[in-house]
Amino acid sequence: MASTQKILELNAFDMTRSGGLDPAVADLVARRRKAFGPTSMLFYERPLNLVRGEGVWLLDEDGTRYLDAYNNVPSVGHCHPRVVEAVARQMGQLNTHTRYLYDSIYTYSERLLATYPSGLSNIVYVCTGSEAVDLALRIARATTGGTGVIVTENAYHGNTTAVTEVSPASASSEPRGAHVFLVPAPDSYRLGLEEASKAFNRAVEAALATMQARGIRPAAMVIDSILSSDGVYPGTVGFLAEAAESVRAAGGLYIADEVQPGFARTGDTMWGFARHGMIPDIAVMGKPMGNGFPMGGVVVKPALLEAFGAHNGYFNTFGGNPVAAAAGMAVLDALAEDGLGENARATGAYLAVQLTALAHRHEVIGDVRGRGLYLGVEMVRDKASREPDRAAAVRAVNGMRARNVLVGTAGRHGNILKIRPPLCFKREHADQLVAALDGALSAATGGAGA
Amino acid sequence: MASTQKILELNAFDMTRSGGLDPAVADLVARRRKAFGPTSMLFYERPLNLVRGEGVWLLDEDGTRYLDAYNNVPSVGHCHPRVVEAVARQMGQLNTHTRYLYDSIYTYSERLLATYPSGLSNIVYVCTGSEAVDLALRIARATTGGTGVIVTENAYHGNTTAVTEVSPASASSEPRGAHVFLVPAPDSYRLGLEEASKAFNRAVEAALATMQARGIRPAAMVIDSILSSDGVYPGTVGFLAEAAESVRAAGGLYIADEVQPGFARTGDTMWGFARHGMIPDIAVMGKPMGNGFPMGGVVVKPALLEAFGAHNGYFNTFGGNPVAAAAGMAVLDALAEDGLGENARATGAYLAVQLTALAHRHEVIGDVRGRGLYLGVEMVRDKASREPDRAAAVRAVNGMRARNVLVGTAGRHGNILKIRPPLCFKREHADQLVAALDGALSAATGGAGA
Repeated sequence: MASTQKILELNAFDMTRSGGLDPAVADLVARRRKAFGPTSMLFYERPLNLVRGEGVWLLDEDGTRYLDAYNNVPSVGHCHPRVVEAVARQMGQLNTHTRYLYDSIYTYSERLLATYPSGLSNIVYVCTGSEAVDLALRIARATTGGTGVIVTENAYHGNTTAVTEVSPASASSEPRGAHVFLVPAPDSYRLGLEEASKAFNRAVEAALATMQARGIRPAAMVIDSILSSDGVYPGTVGFLAEAAESVRAAGGLYIADEVQPGFARTGDTMWGFARHGMIPDIAVMGKPMGNGFPMGGVVVKPALLEAFGAHNGYFNTFGGNPVAAAAGMAVLDALAEDGLGENARATGAYLAVQLTALAHRHEVIGDVRGRGLYLGVEMVRDKASREPDRAAAVRAVNGMRARNVLVGTAGRHGNILKIRPPLCFKREHADQLVAALDGALSAATGGAGA
Repeated sequence: MASTQKILELNAFDMTRSGGLDPAVADLVARRRKAFGPTSMLFYERPLNLVRGEGVWLLDEDGTRYLDAYNNVPSVGHCHPRVVEAVARQMGQLNTHTRYLYDSIYTYSERLLATYPSGLSNIVYVCTGSEAVDLALRIARATTGGTGVIVTENAYHGNTTAVTEVSPASASSEPRGAHVFLVPAPDSYRLGLEEASKAFNRAVEAALATMQARGIRPAAMVIDSILSSDGVYPGTVGFLAEAAESVRAAGGLYIADEVQPGFARTGDTMWGFARHGMIPDIAVMGKPMGNGFPMGGVVVKPALLEAFGAHNGYFNTFGGNPVAAAAGMAVLDALAEDGLGENARATGAYLAVQLTALAHRHEVIGDVRGRGLYLGVEMVRDKASREPDRAAAVRAVNGMRARNVLVGTAGRHGNILKIRPPLCFKREHADQLVAALDGALSAATGGAGA
């Protein structure tokens, strides 16, 4: 509604605005408002009316092509023919549920689980990342007997009641539960890479100590392996392994939220946690898993799932249905055939270099960071103060949209440009994005930058 | 897992069993066990290995055709060409999310909301019935300031943490919260139709009084309009309107769970609550909404949604995406073009008559009830005692499966056959179902019945 993620609040159309829109767009906005109510959020000062998607492109009703550097759901590319064909074929053949046998879901499970470390060998299918995190929390609480959960200060893990509780980035009228403990993301920009990771791990230790002092047993720490909503912080290699060890020593589980970094987005590895040389107790997947077909999954150590399942029921009607299996398999095929992991690594590295060069010419770009095709560009008042500049980020997002390039914002202060395009994003697209950001920043400052 | 719904526990394959299966099936079971763990439930003593679906039919690997009288997700028929084509076309065109404008989601919303009473005019899209109930509870709690929830004794409303709490049919290691109050379903078989409805409403009043005595403010009553998991109890016309008034008088909301009865299944009306001449504050939809494409929805009074949205964020990545809009629209088209509401009414009435005739010949059939194509057949030790007979129900389900007809069980005692086929189920299918039940019961008793 008004502010699912507080971080996005400002990159929104003002629903109380009446004039200035193209009549066709104004009509859609009015119909939307009537059906969805006034608090449902729409991106951009000038909303986009979309009619087509293809690869890294989105097209509006006028045929204008937008370079999509925002959407991580169509991860192998908008309307990837392999996924479209697989879904169409399976939809026409069989679509039931996992209480019957069908070969394809086991074949898909075997292929998917083979990308995980060998200890993580069971899977439960769900329909969304939110359902996945919700179930992971249920498993953690049931198997540890604990309730305490550690998350980062601006974490967003999903939208159910239980997951909203551990998603401080979401606006919620419910007070945060006494069992939820927040730790700051590793702010490598202000603390330096090494110290940021150390500070993060000291904060985890402190949260565990506070829990113990208050008689709260830890259930889990839930961390997005690239800390997306906090502002994109890859951190030092291994820092999450250290955090996981602390949590386990205190009796809790480590849940890796791979909804955003997973499926090769970070380039180096299929899963974000793998860069840290660690094995989580549970990993959750969502968004890109079916390239837009709604599916999610919980990968879990068998002993945990068996212990949970002995006393708890769980069935998900649509989860892992034959069409989900087909979509998921097509995504794995496309990732491999199109070389998207390697492209994420190479194009991501190229884009980071170009953005870093741009930062030298614009005083407002304080930091460029990320892994693969998940990058954050931190906008600040000036490089000396490093003061977060939310308004500059919102201007940049809307300025880039005016230049037909789509990005979003992230972070507690909403001042970090979030760049996470479909993984078929190439060098020429990176160049277009950098030129659009350059143009937007130059226009905003009335010149060619600092 | 072992027992998502305790009611289904016995209609399950024994995963510890090793021999006696066809080698191909045994191989699938072994692969399933390896990927899903030992507590994931599989239907039937002899699991089904499915490869095709069409209309009311499911086909296994040998080409055996099963008459599907269980699955309510493929509500307009397995692999309905209209839905297959709509999903395939839209998948190839555009699949984003509701933070951009696209015409089709508003057109679909307008058509769908037109089937609701005029006061229920806002919609939030989600991906599953569970997500819908979870959000409905969040809205109810945020807008009433209450926490108390009334549900029936064997209700099943979904699988998230918050929804499992109000789903006593689900096995859960968590103790039931002090804010959850149970009322018995209106057992028309044992109390008579009128008295059952009265008893239900007395129980609702009593629950509200207990809440008040304990200082708990009511947030909502959540009722499946056909009381599916309790054992299929349509009740007297209007009895739910009375319950809703009681809850509202105490400050709570009435949430109609239309996941099972909705989309014309009950024949008389598009929505189960409509039969009672009442307007719920919130209605939730799931299963049949996209005929297998994962989608759900929360229809809500605008004032409630606006009050919720002012202080709470909610965004659902896949909810209401362009493919969901296409699938949902195709379902509405198929319902209208194929005359499925009228068929549900007529064929359901015919089937109820045939089953009632069968009941006269079998001592174990205690009661036949339902609306449209949602029927319950209650299995008892004998007609005099009316003692629930779970074993007889499980034998009947497996005996019917052996005769190529698929049904399930429901109810606290697991003794009620649950019949809810795709809505294109015709008289000849009804005849086949009745013959299969007759055969199964006759074989079980070693004769032609009582």
